[in-house]
Amino acid sequence: MTKLGRHLLSIDDLDRASIERILDRAESFDEVSGREIKKVPVLRGRTIVNLFYESSTRTSSSFELAAKRLSADVVSVRSQGSSVDKGESLKDTVQTLSAYDPAAIVIRSPHAGAAGLVAGWTPAAVINAGDGKHEHPTQALLDVFTLRRRLGSLDDACIWIVGDVLHSRVARSNILAFTRMGATVTVCGPPTLIPRDIEALGCEATTTLDCLEEADVVYVLRLQQERMRDSFVPSLREYAARYQITSARLRPGQLLMHPGPVNRGVELSGEAIDSAQALIGAQVRAGVAVRMAVLYELLVGVPILAAAA
Amino acid sequence: MTKLGRHLLSIDDLDRASIERILDRAESFDEVSGREIKKVPVLRGRTIVNLFYESSTRTSSSFELAAKRLSADVVSVRSQGSSVDKGESLKDTVQTLSAYDPAAIVIRSPHAGAAGLVAGWTPAAVINAGDGKHEHPTQALLDVFTLRRRLGSLDDACIWIVGDVLHSRVARSNILAFTRMGATVTVCGPPTLIPRDIEALGCEATTTLDCLEEADVVYVLRLQQERMRDSFVPSLREYAARYQITSARLRPGQLLMHPGPVNRGVELSGEAIDSAQALIGAQVRAGVAVRMAVLYELLVGVPILAAAA
Amino acid sequence: MTKLGRHLLSIDDLDRASIERILDRAESFDEVSGREIKKVPVLRGRTIVNLFYESSTRTSSSFELAAKRLSADVVSVRSQGSSVDKGESLKDTVQTLSAYDPAAIVIRSPHAGAAGLVAGWTPAAVINAGDGKHEHPTQALLDVFTLRRRLGSLDDACIWIVGDVLHSRVARSNILAFTRMGATVTVCGPPTLIPRDIEALGCEATTTLDCLEEADVVYVLRLQQERMRDSFVPSLREYAARYQITSARLRPGQLLMHPGPVNRGVELSGEAIDSAQALIGAQVRAGVAVRMAVLYELLVGVPILAAAA
Repeated sequence: MTKLGRHLLSIDDLDRASIERILDRAESFDEVSGREIKKVPVLRGRTIVNLFYESSTRTSSSFELAAKRLSADVVSVRSQGSSVDKGESLKDTVQTLSAYDPAAIVIRSPHAGAAGLVAGWTPAAVINAGDGKHEHPTQALLDVFTLRRRLGSLDDACIWIVGDVLHSRVARSNILAFTRMGATVTVCGPPTLIPRDIEALGCEATTTLDCLEEADVVYVLRLQQERMRDSFVPSLREYAARYQITSARLRPGQLLMHPGPVNRGVELSGEAIDSAQALIGAQVRAGVAVRMAVLYELLVGVPILAAAA
Repeated sequence: MTKLGRHLLSIDDLDRASIERILDRAESFDEVSGREIKKVPVLRGRTIVNLFYESSTRTSSSFELAAKRLSADVVSVRSQGSSVDKGESLKDTVQTLSAYDPAAIVIRSPHAGAAGLVAGWTPAAVINAGDGKHEHPTQALLDVFTLRRRLGSLDDACIWIVGDVLHSRVARSNILAFTRMGATVTVCGPPTLIPRDIEALGCEATTTLDCLEEADVVYVLRLQQERMRDSFVPSLREYAARYQITSARLRPGQLLMHPGPVNRGVELSGEAIDSAQALIGAQVRAGVAVRMAVLYELLVGVPILAAAA
Repeated sequence: MTKLGRHLLSIDDLDRASIERILDRAESFDEVSGREIKKVPVLRGRTIVNLFYESSTRTSSSFELAAKRLSADVVSVRSQGSSVDKGESLKDTVQTLSAYDPAAIVIRSPHAGAAGLVAGWTPAAVINAGDGKHEHPTQALLDVFTLRRRLGSLDDACIWIVGDVLHSRVARSNILAFTRMGATVTVCGPPTLIPRDIEALGCEATTTLDCLEEADVVYVLRLQQERMRDSFVPSLREYAARYQITSARLRPGQLLMHPGPVNRGVELSGEAIDSAQALIGAQVRAGVAVRMAVLYELLVGVPILAAAA
């Protein structure tokens, strides 16, 4: 039987069977989230720490809700209004929080590799909720969940990832997850925003939308406004002219995804966001179920499955 | 039987019978808040989202506590430390949060009409916790609750609302609610802070405290300090000299109210705040019971009432 | 039988028997925190307000977790994003929050004496979580708990408190608590950071580490970076050269403590922090158990004990 490790730091921690198992578990938790009483007692009395060093609505609230729907107690620590402001090192903060004997620490950090460091400093299970430009594995899992539901399987699906690939942890995690699940991936964006060695991850690369119609799924990345200031793109207007995904550029039947938060009118047109092709709401909803499943698999998983076998 | 709509956006959503029903329900929840175990399981496992785009202590903590005392799970999103900082549109934030399938979204915004927009974007029940200068209906309901308890009925009560009426959503909601419950309302403040057409809401207007003794209830509004900077008032000192409510200006038997937070020594003297005539603590306490009642009526109300009938 | 007062404002509120009783209770709650289900229903349905006017990770999350592990509902109010920003007075904020009928208010403030003032304004039990340079009694209790566990008893233990004694509420509370429990205390730091009349608290004072080897316990205080700016110390480098506690300066068998958050490389070397002599993690863990015990003793304590007698 496939086993998860103690942490979820990278999509590379997961083989295809592990991903499938998390998604199957997430299906059952999504059913819980559809009930009037959206709560199961599996983590009652256990403590989950959310440690967020970057602002976030959807990821932090999604993890918080996932933990609460599993009946855990959640302690949220943000860099604003915390001793992080006082210059305490990440290591000392993690060791402090570990003294509460949490079952899991969910960490978001602007620094690539932070989650891996945290895992070395605590006996808790560590879940990477985004570390710099490195990875964001639960985002990739919820995206695979959303697509598997819609397509049945990702095998042979053609997925384009469009935008600022260079700075995107979502792109990295999703290329790994989509290809592991059998899809082919093409990344597309301005030459300044495509890393040179990106093909090493197992995808193709292009700098124009010319062949976009081959995609079954168009996955659009957020363009951070500060990229313009740093001269990665000449202007938002020019970027939008060349790379914005609009309803006109989508062919019927293509699915549209975005990890959020969206810059309306920059990387995506408002019309496209609101179209029936967009799966953005389904992605967010999947986030709660998938994070419940990840917490469950890391903290409870194996013995329960063994008992069920 | 009177029915509430799906949302509470404005006092105009409520006829007198609906208001009375919410207040009756609030009486029973106030009894719960007086128990040692301040908790009933009526919303167990349901999710309430608090979305606050303005700083707030009493309204946000009051809604949070109301939801917790009904055993709901609460997710609080504030503009600081959230993707709202990243410029995500209100619409996208609401659609994101709606994907969690919340029973209700409580929204505070600096923009008039925001709550109404939100109601168009989500299947959740929407409760307006203050939208710009427009309305703050739960404040009005808790004020009516407080007065009904003290006076038995608001019929024919004479209520003065004193201060910055122009910028006050509390003034708008309270004029509507007080008159609907049978009271007569007079607004009083500097000419620059009284809207021209305020009588259209069914009240009188004056610019001096000369006839204040006719009031049964003196409801004092907060004066935002920035009004002086914007030249609505010549100076806080002059404002206080003409409009500050002091113990000397109150006649015995008059009741004193304020929505909080108070500027001590500006619109109210410290002595008046701490006097036995002030109902400010009772207003805050009523806030929890009334918000429990609003959540209950919107989310559970009708079938339970029908069963009880 | 010893009784606690209604509040915990200062270590001076507690005689030795009261401290022992809190520590005994904390032992049983520490056992709860070691279970998989870290929760007991003793405060179910009761409301605890955390009112923090200073940034804090460990104290605020420790109190929050303590309350949640006792099954209480917690409302956290911070100065950022609250009406405290709007200039509301502490008195009005406390009276507002008191209207929720909380069982306890936990208050942290930059102003000495704030907790005592709060106790005069509310019927709730008040717990001082740090008030300016005055006191931080739960920190002292958790430190005594940690040492009692390690040493069996503090009687005749020799404890050095090293660093910025002048600005430290921890130093004040800990001198009082350690001496009350039978230890002898020496404070050590630069002359500018030792208060003139500190011996009045029952301790010795010195300005060099020359005799540090006599200490059984070396308790290091945080050096706030702004002390350099205010010319209390010539430079962090010079401070570290004279007062930093390093592994080389510790003799084998000495115990090392710090209230956190640590400035690595200023008052403590990284090597010392990570050594087996350091009790820093044990202190943090003790914090949850001791705060559970304080909440329990203040809110439930006496009748239960009487029943058990």
